Amino acid sequence: MEEIKKYIDDNKQRFLDELFELLRFPSVSADPKHQSDVLKTADYVANQLRLAGADQVEVCETDGYPVVYGEKIIDPSKPTVLVYGHYDVQPADPLELWHTAPFEPQIRDGRIFARGACDDKGQFYMHVKAFELMMKTDSLACNIKFMIEGEEEVGSVNLGSFVKQNKTRLKADVVLISDTSMIGLDTPSLETGLRGLSYVEVEVTGPNRDLHSGVYGGAVANPVLILAKMIASLHDENNHITIPHFYDDVQALTEQERNALNTAPYNEEAYKKDLGVEELWGENGYTTLERTGTRPTVEINGIWGGYIGEGAKTVLPSKASAKISMRLVPNQQSDKITQLFEKYFKQIAPKAVKVKVTPHHGGEPVVTPIDSVAYQAAKQAILEYFGREPIPTRGGGSIPIVALFEKELGIKTVLMGFGLDSDNLHSPNEKYDVANFYRGIETIPLFYKHYAQLSTLNQVDKAGLVFNK
Amino acid sequence: MEEIKKYIDDNKQRFLDELFELLRFPSVSADPKHQSDVLKTADYVANQLRLAGADQVEVCETDGYPVVYGEKIIDPSKPTVLVYGHYDVQPADPLELWHTAPFEPQIRDGRIFARGACDDKGQFYMHVKAFELMMKTDSLACNIKFMIEGEEEVGSVNLGSFVKQNKTRLKADVVLISDTSMIGLDTPSLETGLRGLSYVEVEVTGPNRDLHSGVYGGAVANPVLILAKMIASLHDENNHITIPHFYDDVQALTEQERNALNTAPYNEEAYKKDLGVEELWGENGYTTLERTGTRPTVEINGIWGGYIGEGAKTVLPSKASAKISMRLVPNQQSDKITQLFEKYFKQIAPKAVKVKVTPHHGGEPVVTPIDSVAYQAAKQAILEYFGREPIPTRGGGSIPIVALFEKELGIKTVLMGFGLDSDNLHSPNEKYDVANFYRGIETIPLFYKHYAQLSTLNQVDKAGLVFNK
Repeated sequence: MEEIKKYIDDNKQRFLDELFELLRFPSVSADPKHQSDVLKTADYVANQLRLAGADQVEVCETDGYPVVYGEKIIDPSKPTVLVYGHYDVQPADPLELWHTAPFEPQIRDGRIFARGACDDKGQFYMHVKAFELMMKTDSLACNIKFMIEGEEEVGSVNLGSFVKQNKTRLKADVVLISDTSMIGLDTPSLETGLRGLSYVEVEVTGPNRDLHSGVYGGAVANPVLILAKMIASLHDENNHITIPHFYDDVQALTEQERNALNTAPYNEEAYKKDLGVEELWGENGYTTLERTGTRPTVEINGIWGGYIGEGAKTVLPSKASAKISMRLVPNQQSDKITQLFEKYFKQIAPKAVKVKVTPHHGGEPVVTPIDSVAYQAAKQAILEYFGREPIPTRGGGSIPIVALFEKELGIKTVLMGFGLDSDNLHSPNEKYDVANFYRGIETIPLFYKHYAQLSTLNQVDKAGLVFNK
Repeated sequence: MEEIKKYIDDNKQRFLDELFELLRFPSVSADPKHQSDVLKTADYVANQLRLAGADQVEVCETDGYPVVYGEKIIDPSKPTVLVYGHYDVQPADPLELWHTAPFEPQIRDGRIFARGACDDKGQFYMHVKAFELMMKTDSLACNIKFMIEGEEEVGSVNLGSFVKQNKTRLKADVVLISDTSMIGLDTPSLETGLRGLSYVEVEVTGPNRDLHSGVYGGAVANPVLILAKMIASLHDENNHITIPHFYDDVQALTEQERNALNTAPYNEEAYKKDLGVEELWGENGYTTLERTGTRPTVEINGIWGGYIGEGAKTVLPSKASAKISMRLVPNQQSDKITQLFEKYFKQIAPKAVKVKVTPHHGGEPVVTPIDSVAYQAAKQAILEYFGREPIPTRGGGSIPIVALFEKELGIKTVLMGFGLDSDNLHSPNEKYDVANFYRGIETIPLFYKHYAQLSTLNQVDKAGLVFNK
């Protein structure tokens, strides 16, 4: 391991410079005006994979943004790890809340501030650099395949067909992803579940044109008011979701599982203080860790309608819209939930308005096993580097691809994230600790070492579905 | 009257050309970027008053946009009419819904399409042209004073102090305003009441920054959701407003008044068809004419929060905002209602959010007498031109200045509007019928004729407060 440490020390600044170069691409997949930026980012990633030592590097076209592929097969009899990541990022707005420009990375207090610093450029790039150093120090213990996509932030819409069409090329024993968080800088954890997602856009139309609110006000349904009423009726007084059959498929946790989950470090006062709120808000009868990790939610991600410029305009608007997303837990199904939502939302609308529901994208919830060889290898790697075992946690976010891998490739995923919940993912001033960037680069090779060793010991099935007893 | 008709015929095209020139100024008082346009409009109006024959023309500075003043005193012993209008207009957005550019007036099907065509450039300019022709045909029967302001669409914020400082200059017997509508092209009417207004902007803040809706969703109050709930609770299931004491000062109409009001022509099927709605929506127990003319309302004029760009962003926003206005009826008071709203809105907010309420502007509701000399003069003028008596109606809109005139100058107002409710005021494709523009120009001189005659007959008090028995 001395050689690895030395290699990192010798190349520390270059690793960071390369990451900064990557962060400077405004690869916002949701915004068509950044199309060429997203494409340039794919080329940059492909080139970095080549420089790190990957073979068969290809920027693979899809119906949307390309998937960057690369591999290193050292020995077909050794286990194969498929590294997944994404080079696209969330939109940066509201821009005025950033302290420094989102695509001009800057280090302050040991943290890299930039859109994508943590989600997911900073994290997937650790794997590229860990791969480089294993190649350079001749210590790569497994075969490795990279699949870095460009549409994660818009629901990985074209990845399903890409995976289906490339089953042979993507054949592996496990998927390794760093796109999640740890509990704290010195409290390593491994996520063992992710929520699914159903994301819709709704539009409520009242009159066929904007009206003068004095002339018509009081006699015609105001679509903003109706939309507000409809949104308000998505939860009851206990903050339970009111959509009929919404909870039908939710797999309730056992008392034991709930207790285990609630042992994770959590300080309510610190949590509230960090967010600047006097009170938390959520489903009655559940703790914050349960609410974010194990319970489904309905959130309003955006709303707009009528006059939103400066000053006052007395308009009774024709339309109001909202972006609404639901986080799902095992065994809820994204498509089914979208349908239940649409049915209910149309049903509660008064006849005075018309309602349109447009599904954006979805993803299935997943639970990853903690008794697999791969999970054990990740645990050993973290124990070896951090000196303490990782705490298994449930993540509130969604990586739709995890369920897809399981379905199409028949393999499980290990979620070895090095971010923090406070990294402002999807928010202004996204950050990633410089220390965690290097910690990741140093921990990842330990995963390969332990995975190769444990696989041999356990004669693991190449499909990855036979677990360590 | 033949001479007047001939003068109009001879100058028809020029009158329209001048109005078009006026309509081309994007004098949007709500939007600071149009500041110089608004100022240029004031200069244009002043110049047109001068050309029409007015004396003492002045672009009078205020703390905001100027008031354009001009007068013609033919004989101090004759009654004086103060003509009020406004040269500013509503914002034109949403621009994409206009069939032709809002500030490039165009005639289609005998209608002038442009922002301000009806509200109020097309209407106040009729008075300028009627004045011109009375001067040219030597038929002006009263003294006349013009006060054309530039801040009506933002609540006439500086007009109060202007009026207070210019009481002598503005001394008159009656105010004449064309900024309202008639029932139909062949159903003339005169408005006898206007609703008041209280306009506020609210901001609900949840967490101190935008959050990832996966990581935090379910545990932190979503300000859009809370704002929706708060808006939803402004009305009960009968669409009565729930703000405590909101209705305390509402002057209930007598059965007789209600019956009279409901004799105005109104076809519910045609009304719904015009608006493209299947069902109307309003306070239980009241007709559409009552709901828009005699009952107070709460309308949401605009709402925004979170991600409103293209595609999907899984954000739990920090803030949500709305523009909310209340139309008031006699004897509600704007300031008092604003306070009641603010108190209630803060009271219903959960501790998980912070609420800010910012008053925009207000105006008092008014009822104008129908037994005054001036009202009778307007009635006679309309009878003479249209061949039928005008129907007295209650307007749903607000012209805050009417209450101000009563208070500061001690004089009543006659609302002789030539617009139509379907003129898309404050909406895309605002229009004004060319025919009504000329009808107004021809009817206005008849008002002066009858007002001069009736004033002599009734020896009206110069303060205008003694009514015809």
